[in-house]
Amino acid sequence: MNIAVAQSGGPTCAINASLAGIFSQAILSEKINRIYGSVNGIEGIINNNLIDMKEVIKTAEQLELLKITPSTFLGSCRYKLPAVSDDSEIYEKIINCFNKNDIGIFFYIGGNDSMDTVQKLSAYFKENNIDIKVIGIPKTIDNDLMCTDHTPGFGSAAKYLAVTLQEITRDSSVYNVPSVTIVEIMGRDAGWLTASSCVLHANGESSPHLIYLPECTFSEEKFLKDIKEQMAKYPTVIAAVSEGMKADNGGYAAEAFQPGADDPFGHKYLSGIGKYLETLVRDKIGCKVRSIELNVMQRCASHISSRTDIEESYRIGTEGVNAALRGETGKMMAFKRVSHAPYFCNVVSVDVAEAANKEKRLPKKWINEQWNNVTDEACDYFLPLIQGEIFVPMKNGMPVHLKLDIKK
Amino acid sequence: MNIAVAQSGGPTCAINASLAGIFSQAILSEKINRIYGSVNGIEGIINNNLIDMKEVIKTAEQLELLKITPSTFLGSCRYKLPAVSDDSEIYEKIINCFNKNDIGIFFYIGGNDSMDTVQKLSAYFKENNIDIKVIGIPKTIDNDLMCTDHTPGFGSAAKYLAVTLQEITRDSSVYNVPSVTIVEIMGRDAGWLTASSCVLHANGESSPHLIYLPECTFSEEKFLKDIKEQMAKYPTVIAAVSEGMKADNGGYAAEAFQPGADDPFGHKYLSGIGKYLETLVRDKIGCKVRSIELNVMQRCASHISSRTDIEESYRIGTEGVNAALRGETGKMMAFKRVSHAPYFCNVVSVDVAEAANKEKRLPKKWINEQWNNVTDEACDYFLPLIQGEIFVPMKNGMPVHLKLDIKK
Repeated sequence: MNIAVAQSGGPTCAINASLAGIFSQAILSEKINRIYGSVNGIEGIINNNLIDMKEVIKTAEQLELLKITPSTFLGSCRYKLPAVSDDSEIYEKIINCFNKNDIGIFFYIGGNDSMDTVQKLSAYFKENNIDIKVIGIPKTIDNDLMCTDHTPGFGSAAKYLAVTLQEITRDSSVYNVPSVTIVEIMGRDAGWLTASSCVLHANGESSPHLIYLPECTFSEEKFLKDIKEQMAKYPTVIAAVSEGMKADNGGYAAEAFQPGADDPFGHKYLSGIGKYLETLVRDKIGCKVRSIELNVMQRCASHISSRTDIEESYRIGTEGVNAALRGETGKMMAFKRVSHAPYFCNVVSVDVAEAANKEKRLPKKWINEQWNNVTDEACDYFLPLIQGEIFVPMKNGMPVHLKLDIKK
Repeated sequence: MNIAVAQSGGPTCAINASLAGIFSQAILSEKINRIYGSVNGIEGIINNNLIDMKEVIKTAEQLELLKITPSTFLGSCRYKLPAVSDDSEIYEKIINCFNKNDIGIFFYIGGNDSMDTVQKLSAYFKENNIDIKVIGIPKTIDNDLMCTDHTPGFGSAAKYLAVTLQEITRDSSVYNVPSVTIVEIMGRDAGWLTASSCVLHANGESSPHLIYLPECTFSEEKFLKDIKEQMAKYPTVIAAVSEGMKADNGGYAAEAFQPGADDPFGHKYLSGIGKYLETLVRDKIGCKVRSIELNVMQRCASHISSRTDIEESYRIGTEGVNAALRGETGKMMAFKRVSHAPYFCNVVSVDVAEAANKEKRLPKKWINEQWNNVTDEACDYFLPLIQGEIFVPMKNGMPVHLKLDIKK
């Protein structure tokens, strides 16, 4: 039997560690022969665009580099698999690819939308008595998947954010003038990453002084009042704001600043809340103010990855192979936290239907009464996920990445 | 005799290493008693706001942390010292502070504008037969100071840029659709930092495919033609653009996007070229496009500092003390490169008048004929400056910084 693995959705620092975990554990199994990598997510299966992973990962050094290279080694896609009733032809193409290559297990590493694909495919195979197992390996810096304590990739994004926010805090404090710095953080509908900035408080930083989450309604008036209150206490005020903050009317607070385009899943492309709030503070308070958008560095700054995240992402890949070999299908692998301190997590498998097409929000009890910061309990949750650094081999003063050179 | 040291201008990752160098070398001298730190640049001298450095740096661990903490430990200012003829009172305040605290040497760590202060003060002291030595220690991520091979702080900014641009390149390459990524890089009038992105080519990256510098006139038509040419060759095109690119009419290309404010030296606050070019590509080419502003992370991301830069910045501080003790004044310390490979630099002192109020541009011969990239000679110059990493002590998964808690 052969197996196939694909990567989907937005890149992270840890998605290749999960690929390395699947690859390593599959090699150890006598039941598995070839390990196919599908190029550009499920599109590689549909178009029969596969590579033999053993041909591209030939040394221990390459395997180690794969674990710490950011982005998706096999390429990604944002393809939404239609329902069988809408397009059965696509399913036939997928079956054809699997049959042609004798693929008995398919691993899909991705977020919410990828788990939707795992659910649809595994249900289709079961209904048609086709013996192909489908296992989802979670991945998203948004940390918004149900049924798992946290998601691979989140810890590294949170560590990058923490390290960078601390450096921005130093940078913002140099002049003897009151100032406000607004840091715009990724997170469409869930504020996990923005909330994780609270870990700075564990190091004695007063920054971030304010944390604004998409879980709470945003009010300009309240925001300006908060800023003024903090400015009375601190010369340098740092506000961590989620890109997805909602206005009173339910729309995104910074909607006026959007290009307005929707992605194929109907999500709005977001950007601009930082500039919007910067302008607001300049106009209404008139102090020195700037905004910083941390942009894609949040999901690709692998040189400062969380070792905990990289190791767990590798491990959840290996456990995915074990689950499939036990005969499981239609499952998503998940973390179950045993304790905060010392930190221990189990890897379990859950019914993918419980996870797909849902979003896990930050618990309301972790948000303070003023809706402008989070509680100590939230900090206890986040801290273990950013622990440890990885060793990054350097060439010419820059990290060495493992690249798959198959594109035009 | 006591000495005083102050830090001025924009923060960098290496300005505290120079402070550590001055502090360490001064302690070794029997001629020097107290080492005063002036809070918020020359303003601390004017307002007699000094701290005793030995009271805040008491352990070897603190000294090591000082070397690798970003931003300015003593705070900074953007104060332009007026000519004596315009405001002699300020000079009296400065003399009063120096006399009151028995200060015989003043070190000013800063960029272009700080060297102007060093020149004015040292000239004033000479003319009035006042025996106070004034030495400038260069510092700027812009690398635009005359009379020195490069400036402390530049290497760390270039290394952050190289590491981040390589990660952005991975992140941009995941989807199977043509895309353009525009990365906006600091540099008001000199393109050194933007040009340094060419180091990626030494690691076999085709990115950045295009490099646009303020030394060259910018044309929308030419830019769009360049982008289309690169898109024909590469699915993912990365363009490194300086924030200070000039339009045909001599103004900044993105001037329409500026808040329009001037800083006290008459420099325009820049931002927005990235968004401007992103909109241009979207409107005229219509492909997937995004822009990324690297913002202040370029000058404060000390967790990925260049070891070469940190060590040289420390060393130029120690040599500044040696020069002052030899009786020199009105000098700026400078690097003189002996060889690229292996890389060796001398530290020398130069007449500050040769360096102040001038800007060193990238040599025209290092820019290609098409004005959209740089030559191999430029790469040879930049590569040694980003070599080596520093060890960063961590607490709770975040770097430990040394902080001076004296502000409100």
